[in-house]
Amino acid sequence: MRNKVLQRPSAPYLALWLALLLVVGMPVNARAADGLPSWNDGAAKSAIVDFVQRVTKEGGPDFVAPAERIAVFDNDGTLWAEQPVYFQVAFALDQVKALAPKHPEWKTTQPFKAVLDGDMKTLAASGTKGILQIVAVSHAGMTTDEFAKSVADWIATARHPKLQRPYTELVYQPMLELLDYLRANGFKTFIVSGGGVEFMRVFAERVYGIPPEQVIGSSGMVKLETGADGKPVLVKQAKVEFIDDGPGKPVGINRFIGRRPILAFGNSDGDEQMLEWTAAGSGPRFMGIVHHTDAGREWAYDRASSVGKLDKALDEAAQRGWTVVSMKDDWKTIFPPPK
Amino acid sequence: MRNKVLQRPSAPYLALWLALLLVVGMPVNARAADGLPSWNDGAAKSAIVDFVQRVTKEGGPDFVAPAERIAVFDNDGTLWAEQPVYFQVAFALDQVKALAPKHPEWKTTQPFKAVLDGDMKTLAASGTKGILQIVAVSHAGMTTDEFAKSVADWIATARHPKLQRPYTELVYQPMLELLDYLRANGFKTFIVSGGGVEFMRVFAERVYGIPPEQVIGSSGMVKLETGADGKPVLVKQAKVEFIDDGPGKPVGINRFIGRRPILAFGNSDGDEQMLEWTAAGSGPRFMGIVHHTDAGREWAYDRASSVGKLDKALDEAAQRGWTVVSMKDDWKTIFPPPK
Repeated sequence: MRNKVLQRPSAPYLALWLALLLVVGMPVNARAADGLPSWNDGAAKSAIVDFVQRVTKEGGPDFVAPAERIAVFDNDGTLWAEQPVYFQVAFALDQVKALAPKHPEWKTTQPFKAVLDGDMKTLAASGTKGILQIVAVSHAGMTTDEFAKSVADWIATARHPKLQRPYTELVYQPMLELLDYLRANGFKTFIVSGGGVEFMRVFAERVYGIPPEQVIGSSGMVKLETGADGKPVLVKQAKVEFIDDGPGKPVGINRFIGRRPILAFGNSDGDEQMLEWTAAGSGPRFMGIVHHTDAGREWAYDRASSVGKLDKALDEAAQRGWTVVSMKDDWKTIFPPPK
Repeated sequence: MRNKVLQRPSAPYLALWLALLLVVGMPVNARAADGLPSWNDGAAKSAIVDFVQRVTKEGGPDFVAPAERIAVFDNDGTLWAEQPVYFQVAFALDQVKALAPKHPEWKTTQPFKAVLDGDMKTLAASGTKGILQIVAVSHAGMTTDEFAKSVADWIATARHPKLQRPYTELVYQPMLELLDYLRANGFKTFIVSGGGVEFMRVFAERVYGIPPEQVIGSSGMVKLETGADGKPVLVKQAKVEFIDDGPGKPVGINRFIGRRPILAFGNSDGDEQMLEWTAAGSGPRFMGIVHHTDAGREWAYDRASSVGKLDKALDEAAQRGWTVVSMKDDWKTIFPPPK
């Protein structure tokens, strides 16, 4: 149909079609640069744009069919901030405090006692698993719908203690642009995070444009029961089901996606196996690490941090030529403007 | 841009645009009917088309945003045949026979002894769980890539004992059309099956147009290890991880999709909870059951069948007005033509 219309263009149509051709025919570089305005020109941005151009160039040696353009992203420290504690920990602590009146036994039981006493040192020592246990135990008996509502309510009202902004505004503007840029180039974007899957799904679609079915995370057991109205409900159990961290990330990718990503982005040693798993496939690959180097605009931490420790993966990145993004040098902006 | 082009159409353009408008403006009924040519006119087809029209009508009272148009399908007996045994059972039996020389102990250990003796009665008594155990144990130590290759090899060579066709040709033509029709109307189609997820993913994209990340099924444990070449591999363990059947189906839907389907299709009591879970949501819903009523072209079975028993769910469908598709009456064709 379009060809027919083009057969005998009169002057005004010709001008319009030429304008259209000009836009469509713009150099890919220019279009790419437009898509990543918060990235400074440099090695990291070039590596991303070069990779995307190679895998999308039809007939090129590195072309990857759209269905295989799977991109996976860690969440905490990669898509949004994670200091001074993982944001889900802040949620869990608020929840434990709110639910404490119904659980007098928590005053004398760890790790709940540590939460109620504000003993962050004991709490930190319990690690990701400890936090997931707190979430699982404190929410046991809730339906999945009730849990989602408690997350949504918290997200709507909680503020980051230092930056005094909603947690969902503490996402990285350059990474939002990268997600959009990849999707515009036929990639399917997934979150693969140690965080709780039912926590992240509440806001991932609105904030990242990533639908619930593309969010992979740690999970607690649920059980099918019959609710008061006779309808089925899924009730959360006091048991961790799956920890999607470290060696769990390739397992989670296999379980949920069923094919190997060609691009992976993380920021800590908990992402090392995901990056290795991505790198081990054949054909073009992109492995990226967000390096927190900006004490002024965000935080600066790596090898010695208790949250988001980046040590072994940083060495491996250097040895293997993975792309390390320096927040201070590579990003013009950190967070989107306040709404 | 299109409006500009339309501003001053000359005669040939006008004719072309009118032709285009004619196509675009065709009654939705006609377009829908075109999409389901293997379905006879009748209550089942009308119910499907009516539902799709209602949820896609922008501004209508039953409109559902595209992102929420989640459709889930059982596989065995719903998208492809399942007689005389689930096709994955045929695969497992062939695998056990092929691997038996390396496992002399199977000659005296159940359920492997039953397989090697051709004792189908003992085998049938072990149920879905028994079959999953056979698959898990017989494939323990294989990498996920090796397992996928063994499935692909089997699919390429095995033939159905009665119909003498490749198993992947024993899919239901009307259901292939339904999958396409739903996707053309903005639905995202998922498989939610008791079958092994790593078995189905090998062919689901090619056969059904459903990518691996939209296939949900039963699974065995896998473990991240380092392969001989130093690269990471996922190795199958001799342990069932998750049974995506009966009450497991809503659990699997929650775990993998994270939102409630608005359309579900099954064929047996193993799908009852998935249909109930779908029905329990608010807004428009479609619950469908494929009823095997065609002894001539396929098989006829329901309440008394050991494979694909349909008893309680058939009663519930009648009570609640779910759509029951009679293969004999509602389908013009069962299988696609041989390739």
